[in-house]
Amino acid sequence: MDIFDRISANRGPLGSHSHYAHGYFAFPKLEGEIKPRMMFRGKEVLTWSLNNYLGLANHPEVRRIDGEAAAAWGMGYPMGARIMSGNTSYHEQLESELADFMSKPDALLLNFGYQGILSTIDSLVTRHDAIVYDAESHACIIDGVRLHQGKRFVYPHNDIANLEKQLQRATRLTQETGGGILVITEGVFGMSGNMGKLREIVALKEKYSFRFLVDDAHGFGTMGATGAGTAEELGVIDSVDIIFSTFAKSMASIGAFVAGNESVIEYLRYNMRSQIFAKSLPMPLVIGALKRLELLRTQPELKENLWNVVHALQSGLREKGFNLGTTESPVTPVLLAGEISDATALTFDLRENHGIFCSIVVYPVVPKGVIMLRLIPTATHTLADVQETIVAFEAMAAKLDKGLYSKAMTPAQIA
Amino acid sequence: MDIFDRISANRGPLGSHSHYAHGYFAFPKLEGEIKPRMMFRGKEVLTWSLNNYLGLANHPEVRRIDGEAAAAWGMGYPMGARIMSGNTSYHEQLESELADFMSKPDALLLNFGYQGILSTIDSLVTRHDAIVYDAESHACIIDGVRLHQGKRFVYPHNDIANLEKQLQRATRLTQETGGGILVITEGVFGMSGNMGKLREIVALKEKYSFRFLVDDAHGFGTMGATGAGTAEELGVIDSVDIIFSTFAKSMASIGAFVAGNESVIEYLRYNMRSQIFAKSLPMPLVIGALKRLELLRTQPELKENLWNVVHALQSGLREKGFNLGTTESPVTPVLLAGEISDATALTFDLRENHGIFCSIVVYPVVPKGVIMLRLIPTATHTLADVQETIVAFEAMAAKLDKGLYSKAMTPAQIA
Repeated sequence: MDIFDRISANRGPLGSHSHYAHGYFAFPKLEGEIKPRMMFRGKEVLTWSLNNYLGLANHPEVRRIDGEAAAAWGMGYPMGARIMSGNTSYHEQLESELADFMSKPDALLLNFGYQGILSTIDSLVTRHDAIVYDAESHACIIDGVRLHQGKRFVYPHNDIANLEKQLQRATRLTQETGGGILVITEGVFGMSGNMGKLREIVALKEKYSFRFLVDDAHGFGTMGATGAGTAEELGVIDSVDIIFSTFAKSMASIGAFVAGNESVIEYLRYNMRSQIFAKSLPMPLVIGALKRLELLRTQPELKENLWNVVHALQSGLREKGFNLGTTESPVTPVLLAGEISDATALTFDLRENHGIFCSIVVYPVVPKGVIMLRLIPTATHTLADVQETIVAFEAMAAKLDKGLYSKAMTPAQIA
Repeated sequence: MDIFDRISANRGPLGSHSHYAHGYFAFPKLEGEIKPRMMFRGKEVLTWSLNNYLGLANHPEVRRIDGEAAAAWGMGYPMGARIMSGNTSYHEQLESELADFMSKPDALLLNFGYQGILSTIDSLVTRHDAIVYDAESHACIIDGVRLHQGKRFVYPHNDIANLEKQLQRATRLTQETGGGILVITEGVFGMSGNMGKLREIVALKEKYSFRFLVDDAHGFGTMGATGAGTAEELGVIDSVDIIFSTFAKSMASIGAFVAGNESVIEYLRYNMRSQIFAKSLPMPLVIGALKRLELLRTQPELKENLWNVVHALQSGLREKGFNLGTTESPVTPVLLAGEISDATALTFDLRENHGIFCSIVVYPVVPKGVIMLRLIPTATHTLADVQETIVAFEAMAAKLDKGLYSKAMTPAQIA
């Protein structure tokens, strides 16, 4: 069957809803400056859907340096891959400061997070090695694992007993192949908000030989005493061999890094296909990242503000009986019972009638019959924002309980 | 064997040279504004190693808009993936203008080229499909093909007779599996500079059923009457189903796009993992790309200047007896006979004694005994730059012929 004929008929799990979702549930436009109150389809909404944890996207110092750096260098600078013609002293300085911040000997700056961790995984393993990874790992990790030509062993999310079984299988296998084992998990899982069990995994190093890679996209900047992330929070930063984070969340930018010992970082510097065969991170993003990292180090009140909002939101919602699952981080999932039709109707109600904008997650990301609204608090939300949201959620939950949303088949019928 | 022990012992094809290459042959720093004359280790060099074909990296209009857009929006805007919270009217406008420029019904903006084409390939095929691709395809295509769970058939670079054999094999296979066939090649190959045989491949559509994807990273902006690329140059733009290009070369930025019919582009919009699970292209890069595209459309003299330099450089070098292989594009490879030690010594001589900076490519990218110097002319080079370079190359070639470089074991011994 012709490929285009097949994709015309089968639009994929999200694409099959595009006819009514586009522009509203999918590809919505939040307009105006990045702050808790933005415009959506001409009306102001209180938004809880941006991973701008520390509020840096619109921080005056960040805005100033972003403009100045782009004026000074242009977005094209430098041209070429780092290894060929795209290296600068600023790139090296950022690597050095990231290494210090992470308490690791060295760090490698990456031109984008998704392809960065994909190639990190790809360049670390050979077909003789085994990868053991958490089942709820982000798509970029899964794509990296998919490139692996050797065996992979997946364990159910945070199931350490099962992980140990997979380590036993991987150990037997690699004793035959002569390869090694790479264990991969996340610091903070972006959907559930719970932490990877880094302490328990590190403890398994006593019994098994493996290297440990943690993707801390959501933990970097939000977790740990200094903001170095989940490994710092859990006191195991020295025992996690490689720590990765994107700049797309707390750093409010793009780009990413991996930190580890000198030998592995130099190896990655010379062997990562997405880095040696693709363009360097543009200078304004590098200079912007230096400023953001400085703010992480020097303005601990940003993280304090974030956590004040997180605690108020999470305790407030829990007091009203909402199920927030197992979150241990700013990620705040609200789990409700209902069908996809309920989910679209209640999201529409929240946005149009309560002015609350949050992301909605349904089957297949969560089980059938579960609706997950995901709230991302930031340092720039206020306690008044939290109260307004809790009141709206109570009203929404009351309607959901009464089955009022099920009767509305399309969002338009609710208004 | 522990993964870190293995990589300590085996540093990879490029990493094994890092002890003497770092900072000079690998990760060099070209400093100062992006133009033909830049600084390298404190000395001015005439550089031929930046894919800044049209000179846009330092074009005053580009520099102005890059600074203004970053000041107006910051580099963090918008936060989130396009599908979740990272969509804006500017992103949609750029898609519309790219589609028009490419004479295609629709286009999808991508947050980075490498992961963009990787996910394009990944999302187009199922395990029942077959991929047929050129052996010299760029790493990002190869990584996309590596994700494919079905059969892949590679043909030797531009060997259309062999491609047809692979199509026959793929056709037999997909008749069994019920899948389709995706053929992938490049518009202009970045190493050899020759074009993919798009016309011949399109002609095979008369005999075989397949879809055709072209990566035109080096052709976009440089080839074709309007700069729409190699498919335009060869008169087959309507018959190439999907055209991809990065913004990292003629557009002097980062980001990328794919163009095709509405159905396939909408499908990609809702199904590409590196796009639905990773952050949107930042606004200053989107606004900067709109300006760059405007300059491609309205300043054809940029491409004319480029080609004047290309013709002068290539005909000048050929007149002096240099072998430029099969290039049909601005990419100008100079093929010499010699060992890796000659290659490092002559590159050092060119840089230190002649002030000429170009990239060097050796085994395994080219066969053993071949040295390739790759020159990338741009619209901002002058004919005087070309003459200076040809004179330096003549002097270098004379030394190479006399075996003078072989006697110098390390770059330091030449100076």
